[in-house]
Amino acid sequence: MLIFIRPQATAAQRAELRHALAAEGARGPMGTLPLGAGDVIGVEAAPLTAAARERIAALPAVARVVPVAAPYKLASRAASATPSSVRIGAVVIGGGGVPPVIAGPCSVENEDQIVEAAQAAKDAGAVMLRGGAFKPRTSPYTFQGLGISGLRLLARAREVTGLPVVTEVMEPNLVDVVAEYADMLQIGARNMQNYALLVAAGHAGKPILLKRGPSSTIEEWLLAAEYILATGNPQVVMCERGIRSFDPLTRNVLDVAAVPLLRTLTHLPVVVDPSHGTGRRDLVVPMALAGVAAGADGVIVEMHPQPDAAMSDAAQTITPAALREIITGTRAIAAALGRISAPDTPKEHSQRHARVR
Amino acid sequence: MLIFIRPQATAAQRAELRHALAAEGARGPMGTLPLGAGDVIGVEAAPLTAAARERIAALPAVARVVPVAAPYKLASRAASATPSSVRIGAVVIGGGGVPPVIAGPCSVENEDQIVEAAQAAKDAGAVMLRGGAFKPRTSPYTFQGLGISGLRLLARAREVTGLPVVTEVMEPNLVDVVAEYADMLQIGARNMQNYALLVAAGHAGKPILLKRGPSSTIEEWLLAAEYILATGNPQVVMCERGIRSFDPLTRNVLDVAAVPLLRTLTHLPVVVDPSHGTGRRDLVVPMALAGVAAGADGVIVEMHPQPDAAMSDAAQTITPAALREIITGTRAIAAALGRISAPDTPKEHSQRHARVR
Amino acid sequence: MLIFIRPQATAAQRAELRHALAAEGARGPMGTLPLGAGDVIGVEAAPLTAAARERIAALPAVARVVPVAAPYKLASRAASATPSSVRIGAVVIGGGGVPPVIAGPCSVENEDQIVEAAQAAKDAGAVMLRGGAFKPRTSPYTFQGLGISGLRLLARAREVTGLPVVTEVMEPNLVDVVAEYADMLQIGARNMQNYALLVAAGHAGKPILLKRGPSSTIEEWLLAAEYILATGNPQVVMCERGIRSFDPLTRNVLDVAAVPLLRTLTHLPVVVDPSHGTGRRDLVVPMALAGVAAGADGVIVEMHPQPDAAMSDAAQTITPAALREIITGTRAIAAALGRISAPDTPKEHSQRHARVR
Amino acid sequence: MLIFIRPQATAAQRAELRHALAAEGARGPMGTLPLGAGDVIGVEAAPLTAAARERIAALPAVARVVPVAAPYKLASRAASATPSSVRIGAVVIGGGGVPPVIAGPCSVENEDQIVEAAQAAKDAGAVMLRGGAFKPRTSPYTFQGLGISGLRLLARAREVTGLPVVTEVMEPNLVDVVAEYADMLQIGARNMQNYALLVAAGHAGKPILLKRGPSSTIEEWLLAAEYILATGNPQVVMCERGIRSFDPLTRNVLDVAAVPLLRTLTHLPVVVDPSHGTGRRDLVVPMALAGVAAGADGVIVEMHPQPDAAMSDAAQTITPAALREIITGTRAIAAALGRISAPDTPKEHSQRHARVR
Repeated sequence: MLIFIRPQATAAQRAELRHALAAEGARGPMGTLPLGAGDVIGVEAAPLTAAARERIAALPAVARVVPVAAPYKLASRAASATPSSVRIGAVVIGGGGVPPVIAGPCSVENEDQIVEAAQAAKDAGAVMLRGGAFKPRTSPYTFQGLGISGLRLLARAREVTGLPVVTEVMEPNLVDVVAEYADMLQIGARNMQNYALLVAAGHAGKPILLKRGPSSTIEEWLLAAEYILATGNPQVVMCERGIRSFDPLTRNVLDVAAVPLLRTLTHLPVVVDPSHGTGRRDLVVPMALAGVAAGADGVIVEMHPQPDAAMSDAAQTITPAALREIITGTRAIAAALGRISAPDTPKEHSQRHARVR
Repeated sequence: MLIFIRPQATAAQRAELRHALAAEGARGPMGTLPLGAGDVIGVEAAPLTAAARERIAALPAVARVVPVAAPYKLASRAASATPSSVRIGAVVIGGGGVPPVIAGPCSVENEDQIVEAAQAAKDAGAVMLRGGAFKPRTSPYTFQGLGISGLRLLARAREVTGLPVVTEVMEPNLVDVVAEYADMLQIGARNMQNYALLVAAGHAGKPILLKRGPSSTIEEWLLAAEYILATGNPQVVMCERGIRSFDPLTRNVLDVAAVPLLRTLTHLPVVVDPSHGTGRRDLVVPMALAGVAAGADGVIVEMHPQPDAAMSDAAQTITPAALREIITGTRAIAAALGRISAPDTPKEHSQRHARVR
Repeated sequence: MLIFIRPQATAAQRAELRHALAAEGARGPMGTLPLGAGDVIGVEAAPLTAAARERIAALPAVARVVPVAAPYKLASRAASATPSSVRIGAVVIGGGGVPPVIAGPCSVENEDQIVEAAQAAKDAGAVMLRGGAFKPRTSPYTFQGLGISGLRLLARAREVTGLPVVTEVMEPNLVDVVAEYADMLQIGARNMQNYALLVAAGHAGKPILLKRGPSSTIEEWLLAAEYILATGNPQVVMCERGIRSFDPLTRNVLDVAAVPLLRTLTHLPVVVDPSHGTGRRDLVVPMALAGVAAGADGVIVEMHPQPDAAMSDAAQTITPAALREIITGTRAIAAALGRISAPDTPKEHSQRHARVR
Repeated sequence: MLIFIRPQATAAQRAELRHALAAEGARGPMGTLPLGAGDVIGVEAAPLTAAARERIAALPAVARVVPVAAPYKLASRAASATPSSVRIGAVVIGGGGVPPVIAGPCSVENEDQIVEAAQAAKDAGAVMLRGGAFKPRTSPYTFQGLGISGLRLLARAREVTGLPVVTEVMEPNLVDVVAEYADMLQIGARNMQNYALLVAAGHAGKPILLKRGPSSTIEEWLLAAEYILATGNPQVVMCERGIRSFDPLTRNVLDVAAVPLLRTLTHLPVVVDPSHGTGRRDLVVPMALAGVAAGADGVIVEMHPQPDAAMSDAAQTITPAALREIITGTRAIAAALGRISAPDTPKEHSQRHARVR
């Protein structure tokens, strides 16, 4: 809903408008228009009653009010009174509690490697295993993954450790076989707008981890989620993994603000991927913690027992020891911000911070 | 220093190289080259002895080793054995401890407003006051600040509250008068490469808060710091305030990863500005906490007793209550990550996290 | 091939190096490294003999020479002595001559519309018809195209006008049916890294129009072409259609420089799409001409007999009259720059400009 | 002026609106809003009479019409009935005719170099000399220009060749001395938002070449021009010189579409700088021609008699022979598009293309 401010409105009248919006329960602002100089503000219409909208339209600062609907319906906050959560076996992403950490190698390489990695992830405190069987690779000449035999090795690692498995699916034709082995399907950043894949994955009925495209707006990303939700599958987790920018020192820029921004727009849970989001091993731990402090519902990282021997993404793959730092830090921050109860966190503090999210 | 990998090097040989680099104390990788497919890695040469470099060059994975010096000298980590800190009155930015929070209105408007804001900032736990007397404005027709009388009002607010003051200087000719009233000079994002201003500000001998330009690389930003350092003034604090990107929902993208990345490249302290970094009031608190979790040495935010009545930047200005959330959260995270001692933080945990930074 | 310059090299020695590179037939520079301050230059190694490389390495300005191969092989200039051309029926894209113009509506809507559009395109001088039967749409709730019946209507329009048809294919499973009706398959920007689709389209054996992804580097785009070429299908045309940037006034930024840059890197032909590249009807004609002046082998535009009645992309769709301006302007520029013989272009001028491309 | 479309409006009603806008003389569309799905269009209000606006508001497709003023006044098209032109000695930029070409070295190095360069520029057909006396340099340790003695050498080169001179001014304090020697003052990209400099330069009363900042929106750029125009100095020429983007192969992305876009927004003339706009010598000629084809009023390039010996920007500096290609090509394109009369251009063609601009 767009609110056009009268150019002659005084500061006091503008303040009155803001207060009224807050009092009526409006969320936003959703941004200002590129034309003009800030005299149009947008807020979410959903929480406002018709009567509230009329009261706002009648304020002296307001020239007129124009409704604009969000183009996504099922993904919008209006569609769910509470944040939704997605369950993968015993793991729950979203809805509060300690943010779960998902870890594992970039690629499945062989049985020893993936079982060892899964065990190391579990020992460090990760609750879910990631690993690529089908790998999207920029060059046709680089290792493309083990394919179906990689899926079998992931299932074997799950059998040994009990960790549920998330792995990428890259083609509609392969959705069934990937869904047979995996507990959660990953849609990769390159395929965020591969609509046939989104629909096929949605129909598989499994939880889906939807990575953000490297130059996708938040709205495009939510519309990609909408493609899945529209199949009747509500189990979507958004994954911020970095956007493309200009500085050659990092592979991507992790848009941490996407986490609290999604909170205002959608009920879907959101996790951060600091491995792809930075491309540098030395930035993964601090950026995982940054994501959690900003309110992420979970973290996914590339971890390998011997990172330097990894067949792909070695430069951004961390050790089990660094994973342990993330998990301990995640718990500590969640407790410090009062998101989980912790014996060492004073009560008053918890309450004060419950509002952060 | 660039290390060229032999194309025929096996995974084991590559791993051996990585281990050797770690064992010799190399920092990095600093990134890979855009040409070729990842067979060149860059690491900082500084910590390596000549003997170490020879040992690395002799490994089977290595085709050759080529030294490349960082173009900035005084700002580089090689120039200082320990992280440097900058003192502004009783406030210390950098060097550990609770990250200080700087707060205040976008613009100084009148005596009541700035004194009230300073008092509210102090009451919430902020240790320094920000406020613009000279305002860089995109349009010549918008409020440009009170100028010198604004400086006097800032001094008055300091007198009342005891908080030191940081304010922007926009012209070489005004450096002296701003330095007369302010405790710290701010170089704004639009002026990051205004070299005459950098040099004039450096010569004033006051601490300087150097904002990152909205499309500046980390290297350009460090070279801007180098302009100041080269005047003989070592008191530079880097301030990440968001880079320009494509999503219309936020004003900028706060590049939180710049914080840990600067740690690897410079000894200078770094603070985050989540107000300009997002442009949205509802994102300021979580992004301030994200910056602190990533290792920032401080936070600077726009706060106003009545944000909706602010004459500029109202959309991104927070309330005193939100400032209090930031300050409490900052302390809680610093304690949780073992950066400060806290009675409620278990000892073992602190030790484990000392390495995060 | 990377050439490292000695820091002590004088300007005269650097000039000597440049002259030697030119004399030996080196192409480039391909860019400089982000580390250091410009003392490494990259040139294509392909045209240099081993003896030439040794002569260059021996110059006083040169510290050392390091070979780096381009990651794409079949797409690289080294793979073909001459620019390649792609034939679609009677139309030839690449290899000189008047750059062909492809035109048609965003979507096929019904028989009258597509036949009328094809006839208008032909009358204006376009030599090929574009039109979407399967439409990638950001939202699941917008018109997704007529599908297979749209393909039949395209075939009908071809029957009436004789114009060959290019249309998008979005799923590997649909490649066969689209190839049955279309003369050229389009891979859309969202699918540039949908590798299963690239491979399936390659195997269909039809010419392929490969759009650049909105945040794809030139190297990633050439590697996507490599996926197709590696199937044994050499008929690939690159299509620059704008990259994502920060200014809200245009939908994308048409990277016109990609045209001459591709000339230095690949033998494949390249066309420009100023419709998606700007998103604004009023910019399509001048940007089409800009692309041709920069050396494009063709132009593809969205045109509709009644643009304002178009079911999709109306804001960027031009009229038949504007199409005629593009076609007349394209011929005039090609003649003016001596790329085609024209009775009204003086001979001397033609010769001088043959080098522009 | 924003026009809100009724969601229920039929395609025919939408077409009727477009036709009415065209019939009433509306310019635009200026873009669509980021919220919603294209049901708001913006057009310039200036050319419409009040009666015309009422007629449009009454159409069945229109929900309502809302006026939004452009934040720049003096720079807007509404401020001048015809495109403005800027005169520098005998050179006129803007207003039609053959687009003038400005050429010269990045830096003034010594008398022989600048006089030789000026003579080579003149011989090739350039009508104005560029050259830096004060150089903005990212690093404090690189050559910063000859300063005032460089200005004297530029004046000497003008004396010898008769070419007027444009050179950069970087500090308000130096405006007077630069204006004493130069015929046109350049505001560099790094200083586009150095407001004190814009105002000081405006007051000097000389023509000003205003480069676009590397991440500036078109609106911010026009507001920077407004700062100059508001001093009472109307002689402003806009210079597109590339925006920052993600591909490492070029230094910047030359936003050629800024040329026709500025035509719709401002009466000020616009030139392109393909040297900084690409950073690569091999792209300068084709991109200069692309700019001219898109409607630029002029071209500015870095040219050096011995480019490889240039003390700065050697990688993007062209030879006198390449400059000649630009000048011949510029004339040929201007004639081909009917912007100048040429004996070899058929009459009918000229008329048809008069509308391109």
